[in-house]
Amino acid sequence: MKLENFIRDVPDFPKPGIVFKDITPLLLDNAAFRYAVDALAAFFTEDRPAHVAAVESRGFIFGAAVALELQAGFIPLRKPGKLPYKTVSETYSLEYGEDMIQVHEDACEPGDKVLVIDDLLATGGTAAAACSLMQRLQAEVIGAGFVIELDFLNGRENLGGLRVESLVHYDLE
Amino acid sequence: MKLENFIRDVPDFPKPGIVFKDITPLLLDNAAFRYAVDALAAFFTEDRPAHVAAVESRGFIFGAAVALELQAGFIPLRKPGKLPYKTVSETYSLEYGEDMIQVHEDACEPGDKVLVIDDLLATGGTAAAACSLMQRLQAEVIGAGFVIELDFLNGRENLGGLRVESLVHYDLE
Repeated sequence: MKLENFIRDVPDFPKPGIVFKDITPLLLDNAAFRYAVDALAAFFTEDRPAHVAAVESRGFIFGAAVALELQAGFIPLRKPGKLPYKTVSETYSLEYGEDMIQVHEDACEPGDKVLVIDDLLATGGTAAAACSLMQRLQAEVIGAGFVIELDFLNGRENLGGLRVESLVHYDLE
Repeated sequence: MKLENFIRDVPDFPKPGIVFKDITPLLLDNAAFRYAVDALAAFFTEDRPAHVAAVESRGFIFGAAVALELQAGFIPLRKPGKLPYKTVSETYSLEYGEDMIQVHEDACEPGDKVLVIDDLLATGGTAAAACSLMQRLQAEVIGAGFVIELDFLNGRENLGGLRVESLVHYDLE
């Protein structure tokens, strides 16, 4: 299956000069969505992660489905103030300013194997924060999987040698 | 399976006097999460919806998984400014003020059967807006499914006779 055929370029979003990779056509096609979830899960089946962690909102779409496929638990990583119970936080830099994600402090046990899933690997800032956050809970982050990787942004260099798997690669902006 | 055993009461969230129903323990338990997704899908299997629509962020967790299970497409309904392509909007009232959700204008064809999924039915404001939004695209909304229904808030009365199915009911606040 050529997943590229289900990804739409939207120019000038979220700001002029940026070409946004829109995955909503992929989600609308059950066979393509199923293929993407199964392919992401297949990369990590033998690692037997206990949990899959993903950052809201688009990350939830693929992260929860991959967790079900791998018979793993799902850990939602959320923006500040969204999780109801006691949380641990990780602050990270954006192009302008900074952002924060949180996880429940009882989301996993020390030593649990955790896989991080997101729809897109760009500069890697969010993914690196997700990994750091899970490591604060003493999880063992065994890898990160993405539907799309923007190779020209070198995001995997921000993930410190972590195993990174992506389904679709874009080489040029 | 007693899904209630995987739902945690968090008092005074998001504000004093409210008891929040926390589904993160359910998500962490693969068997409970799988059970909830399969049970939600089973309610609507015979209706053969073409798509499942869900509002970010928690709705994505269950909506996407139910879509995969029903071999349907997944339609993300998002807060303003999040969807990259041309959108249609629906404004709805909150306890204080109002909110808006959007959908891509090409998310479905007129007459497509659509199922709305969310984690929680409270007063029904968000679910009613999701149904209205899909009806603006001339979809046929065939029902709405929830993991949790707070019966004492009478949310289903806001859904105009739509078929509503929920897995866990709470009668008293």
